[in-house]
Amino acid sequence: MCTPLRLGIAGLGTVGVGVLRIVQRQAALLSARTGREITISAVSARSRDRDRGVRISDYAWEDDPVALARRDDVDVFVELMGGSDGPSKAATEAAIAAGKDVVTANKALLAMHGQALAEAAEAADVSIRYEAGVAGGIPCIKALGESLAGNEITRVMGVMNGTCNYILTRMQDAGLDYQTVFAECEELGYLEADPTLDVGGIDAGHKLALLVSLAFGTRVDYGALQIEGIEKITITDIEQASDMGYRIKLLGVAQKTGRGIDARMSPCLVPALSPLGQLEGPMNMIVFEGDSIGQVVLRGAGAGEGPTASAVLGDICDLARGHRQPIFGIPSSDLVPGERAARSAPAPYYMRMELADKPGALAKIATVLGDAGVSIDRMRQYGHESATAPVLIVTHKVQSDDLVRAVEAMESTGVLASAPVAIRIEEV
Amino acid sequence: MCTPLRLGIAGLGTVGVGVLRIVQRQAALLSARTGREITISAVSARSRDRDRGVRISDYAWEDDPVALARRDDVDVFVELMGGSDGPSKAATEAAIAAGKDVVTANKALLAMHGQALAEAAEAADVSIRYEAGVAGGIPCIKALGESLAGNEITRVMGVMNGTCNYILTRMQDAGLDYQTVFAECEELGYLEADPTLDVGGIDAGHKLALLVSLAFGTRVDYGALQIEGIEKITITDIEQASDMGYRIKLLGVAQKTGRGIDARMSPCLVPALSPLGQLEGPMNMIVFEGDSIGQVVLRGAGAGEGPTASAVLGDICDLARGHRQPIFGIPSSDLVPGERAARSAPAPYYMRMELADKPGALAKIATVLGDAGVSIDRMRQYGHESATAPVLIVTHKVQSDDLVRAVEAMESTGVLASAPVAIRIEEV
Repeated sequence: MCTPLRLGIAGLGTVGVGVLRIVQRQAALLSARTGREITISAVSARSRDRDRGVRISDYAWEDDPVALARRDDVDVFVELMGGSDGPSKAATEAAIAAGKDVVTANKALLAMHGQALAEAAEAADVSIRYEAGVAGGIPCIKALGESLAGNEITRVMGVMNGTCNYILTRMQDAGLDYQTVFAECEELGYLEADPTLDVGGIDAGHKLALLVSLAFGTRVDYGALQIEGIEKITITDIEQASDMGYRIKLLGVAQKTGRGIDARMSPCLVPALSPLGQLEGPMNMIVFEGDSIGQVVLRGAGAGEGPTASAVLGDICDLARGHRQPIFGIPSSDLVPGERAARSAPAPYYMRMELADKPGALAKIATVLGDAGVSIDRMRQYGHESATAPVLIVTHKVQSDDLVRAVEAMESTGVLASAPVAIRIEEV
Repeated sequence: MCTPLRLGIAGLGTVGVGVLRIVQRQAALLSARTGREITISAVSARSRDRDRGVRISDYAWEDDPVALARRDDVDVFVELMGGSDGPSKAATEAAIAAGKDVVTANKALLAMHGQALAEAAEAADVSIRYEAGVAGGIPCIKALGESLAGNEITRVMGVMNGTCNYILTRMQDAGLDYQTVFAECEELGYLEADPTLDVGGIDAGHKLALLVSLAFGTRVDYGALQIEGIEKITITDIEQASDMGYRIKLLGVAQKTGRGIDARMSPCLVPALSPLGQLEGPMNMIVFEGDSIGQVVLRGAGAGEGPTASAVLGDICDLARGHRQPIFGIPSSDLVPGERAARSAPAPYYMRMELADKPGALAKIATVLGDAGVSIDRMRQYGHESATAPVLIVTHKVQSDDLVRAVEAMESTGVLASAPVAIRIEEV
């Protein structure tokens, strides 16, 4: 049996408490599986005295996470505070500088400063592991970085924010509009303090940025992603999509194109009967496609004490076993800038609009679509009692630039009562 | 950059050829990701001259896989011959004795001789890795042994034989009987040379035996599993199950009970809308449940050149990075005998029978079921024109012993036209 692996844990919220519970409850299992005792030397959090329902009196206390990160009796700094800057960044940098390995659940920190942190970690010959940062308990970082190491990755997809998936499936199941379900979620405490992180697609975008880097060997670059949230999705969209055999998901999609990487986190229509379409409630799902493996799908809880702490412990056990590898799959000096693709891969689109109820309105729309090179697969005009007529169009595959031009042309016809909605249909 | 990792590959069937293709095509990617060049020193197969559509002239040839395993220029022996004994066993033992790491896709070998091989490997300080042996491209061995290392595993489930899943879904989709679909599969070359390995549940049982050991820290013991194939599943069972919202799957299930481990590979009814119920065609799915993670589901291709070779390469890359851990999760000396559970966890059952069409027959069956402590959830008697009446019963949860007693009592009533069919309904 080797020397113990000693942890310093910064952040005692839901996940931190979960990690403490596992280390305490499963000590025998962890040491049998890793050949080392896994111990906690010290902890740090905002308030020392809060009752968290877990014993912390055996551990040294640090008010300052930076001091925790530098302690001589800490081998692995476990960062569970969150936030892309401030104390979490300072403490992570301090840990690296002090030669400690880092295990983190902080996707925002890595999405914003991943390249610099990876370079610092390699210079200090330490590891940064972040399985818990992406899709909670789903072992997607390990699957992508290790199991699929023999593959050229062709596409990464996923539902990576459980709250958004809960909102969209709740809207569908109960026939409720977005505002009502959003209010329910606020009441239930499902949303981040700044809900835009969830419903604006930012949190999910941070996760996608990390997957893109690991999948394609590019520098982490959150700014290269197209991010769009679910705030504009209406119950009408959900119901019409459902009528046509689709579900609407906040979907991350990344693939290599001829020029650059096309990476988007945005609402998409997916077939109702596909694994992604069938994902209900607050679950997460990650889909990897590679030149050898074809497609592999991973499904599980994307958040919560147990699942996220499980992921943290998986990383800790790997470090206890001495497993090390580059943070984003290849040495940070070999990561290339992830040039943003000039255009997305062509895809069919769902479009919804309100037409002025005048003779020839529909013909005008059909004409400008045709002129823009957008060909129509299906079109429906719904019965109505108001002065405007709801119209739904599903296009054949179209270049995103052509679609943008078509939407502009449609708006210039003067027959639209409001700006049309266009949602990509992703082939899964 | 370290020294190259040199492979010796025994077996140039579908998977072996797939491994050669990846090593040749993705050389740059593999060395970027592992920091080492991955090369092939020598290969071995039954016939040297067969055209396999892949270049082998650069590699030394060995007629004898044992000689290949012992070569000085081989670091990792890659065993892709198959078979639980004979050359694959001899060559694997020779590789271990010669101090080589082993990567294998051979579940039969490990299911039969896993404990002895693990002990030999630990004594020689080498690794045996077998991701490709269980569920093809799905990274389930890594997920269970590494990602979930912080969990006490509570249940393992899975569809692990794509051919059986293809047969069952083809029967359902086309309304064909078992014999017809079996004949189709023979014609298409989907079946093993000895088809009992597939349809008898043996191949899937080998895989389950490995997962059980890794999940519960027990010695690999294929003999402790209950194995039942799909040969007796009729189109009637499939249609009736479907009517009630279920699908029939050849499902592996393993869980700890109060006394011993309950591990079965057998046809089960699962809810049609669950991920397992929705798995169609030749795909595989593995479900893990742990005390922290809750449930995680992995889905992918369970066989085929690309997916299986991808799993082999994942293991090779781990070895190139120097990652090592005990073969079945904990040191082989700590693995305990996997006592077979005295009884399975209670479950509802689906039962189908033909009753003699006489007054009082149904009452007799209901009475003996009640006497045996089996309570009925749903019962249907179908219209019929023959002398016997088809009856279908879904029970409430029942101990398997009680069910066996009930079936015996039913048979002794004299009102059954043939032995009843009973299939477990697994809660997923």
